Amino acid sequence: MNADTTRTSLPAFVAEFELRIRELLRSDVEFIQLIEEDLVSAGGKRIRPRLAFLSSSALGGVPFEMELALAVELLHSATLLHDDLVDDAETRRGREAAYRKYGNAVSVLSGDYLLSRVLYLLARTGRIELVELFAEAARRLAEGEVLQFQVAAYQEYSEEQYYRIIEGKTAALMTAATEGAALLADAPRNIRAALRDFGYHYGMAFQMRDDYLDLMGDEKRLGKPVGGDVREGKVTLITYWLMQQHPQEVNEILLRRASAPGDVEKLRYLAESSGVATRVVAAIEERVGRAVSSLSPLADSGAKVALEELALAELQRLQ
Amino acid sequence: MNADTTRTSLPAFVAEFELRIRELLRSDVEFIQLIEEDLVSAGGKRIRPRLAFLSSSALGGVPFEMELALAVELLHSATLLHDDLVDDAETRRGREAAYRKYGNAVSVLSGDYLLSRVLYLLARTGRIELVELFAEAARRLAEGEVLQFQVAAYQEYSEEQYYRIIEGKTAALMTAATEGAALLADAPRNIRAALRDFGYHYGMAFQMRDDYLDLMGDEKRLGKPVGGDVREGKVTLITYWLMQQHPQEVNEILLRRASAPGDVEKLRYLAESSGVATRVVAAIEERVGRAVSSLSPLADSGAKVALEELALAELQRLQ
Repeated sequence: MNADTTRTSLPAFVAEFELRIRELLRSDVEFIQLIEEDLVSAGGKRIRPRLAFLSSSALGGVPFEMELALAVELLHSATLLHDDLVDDAETRRGREAAYRKYGNAVSVLSGDYLLSRVLYLLARTGRIELVELFAEAARRLAEGEVLQFQVAAYQEYSEEQYYRIIEGKTAALMTAATEGAALLADAPRNIRAALRDFGYHYGMAFQMRDDYLDLMGDEKRLGKPVGGDVREGKVTLITYWLMQQHPQEVNEILLRRASAPGDVEKLRYLAESSGVATRVVAAIEERVGRAVSSLSPLADSGAKVALEELALAELQRLQ
Repeated sequence: MNADTTRTSLPAFVAEFELRIRELLRSDVEFIQLIEEDLVSAGGKRIRPRLAFLSSSALGGVPFEMELALAVELLHSATLLHDDLVDDAETRRGREAAYRKYGNAVSVLSGDYLLSRVLYLLARTGRIELVELFAEAARRLAEGEVLQFQVAAYQEYSEEQYYRIIEGKTAALMTAATEGAALLADAPRNIRAALRDFGYHYGMAFQMRDDYLDLMGDEKRLGKPVGGDVREGKVTLITYWLMQQHPQEVNEILLRRASAPGDVEKLRYLAESSGVATRVVAAIEERVGRAVSSLSPLADSGAKVALEELALAELQRLQ
């Protein structure tokens, strides 16, 4: 039997997810209700819940897949609320950043409210090992975020630090989404490792692409000006490699945080002409390849194909 | 057998606690390490761990009492890190508020790091019901904190709102400390209710006293200027009752957030002369009485006496 034919489809799952997340975030404290409504209706791509659902489906469906999907998304949302402060982000998913509307206070505390709902969801699964998995993901997430700040403050840029940061801030939670499904299914060791590796490499590719497009992307498609990271003093793989090839020019631009006219265009030009852009694209392709091949121990299914397609989609719009 | 004679003493427990908390907060991200060291060495009264330990001892010692004690303290510490931003507090436990040293970013994210350690501790106990108990405490904690902000913003002061706020921001977590011990002991229903009620009433009394002293206390003993709450636009029980008796004078002072010379002294004088201060003290006494009498189902022990003494200590320095 192909497990997928008997199961909920992805669109049906996402629709159910949107209902459940609304229900879960209801609070009789009005300020919390307002900020959570704002968050829910802003939506987002729901990448993490998709990962959880597709991983579950690839295993024939696991108990508490919805709780897992909600927990990863809410942990991610809490980070966004705490991160808006950090980044001083002017826009987030095309909407006014929550904290500008309601103040830092409500933003941080509403993030904490989300985290309390994550705890509630984990408790509902009845699986203490899942609590442990989330403890580790949350620890690495916080460490990755702080490390990003520290690296910028000390200007101690390196390729190793870059990978450590994105591992923490993105790959750790995506890994929890995919490995969590295997845990809930009590899947054999090799299957659990397969889903863990997929989540990890997919997460790395996802963040590397995001960072690449931040400089090299198309403003209209991005919905925000390019060069945001450089203006915040964040050195991603592309700028780090550029620093190696054109130390003087790139360091000057970084030092003034791309505040002079033409700075961002200069970086884009250098990235193209030096071949650094191509090298970053190749590094992303390599990650996507590792993600896809991680899945080989899984039995064939529509969900497995959908996971592969999700990973391959990271290669679109790169050139 | 008197359970207490065979068990660790409170000072020995606290010493072990200080070692364990240091161990637990170690991170190889330097900024996290710095902020957590700052937090640990600043210390504090460790009231919540004491509650957990004494509750455990009153039941003859329960498994994972140290994990419970650490989890309640770290959840509390995370709130302090998130709250420093909120309150714009200038001092916290007599030290420079963490965020002034390292910036809002590291403060919020290091709070998140602490929360990930709470998850880890909960997972170690292997008790999913404890995760559920903490989910509820954390939810009420976040709601109480946001409600405080909302009430100040809307100026929708009432006695009911005041109690709801302190229930969330203080009593909920203290209840988790005491009830958590009963849960870990698989104590009978009436014993669990006894410890839950003690934690709740003690927590209420604790916060009511704290709020009372914020206006009526002695600056030297407090280690900070009196009237901090009024200056932050927070209406506690004493100011709310004063508003009922002297609406015009008190509203004016609140409106200018006690910025005129003599404002705080005026409130203190009014509180004494109107009898409001005495009424608040009586309300605290009543809470302490309820806390103490909650303990009656527990067998006599040194730990039970210590819990009673902890509650009675809230009545010191009030007049």
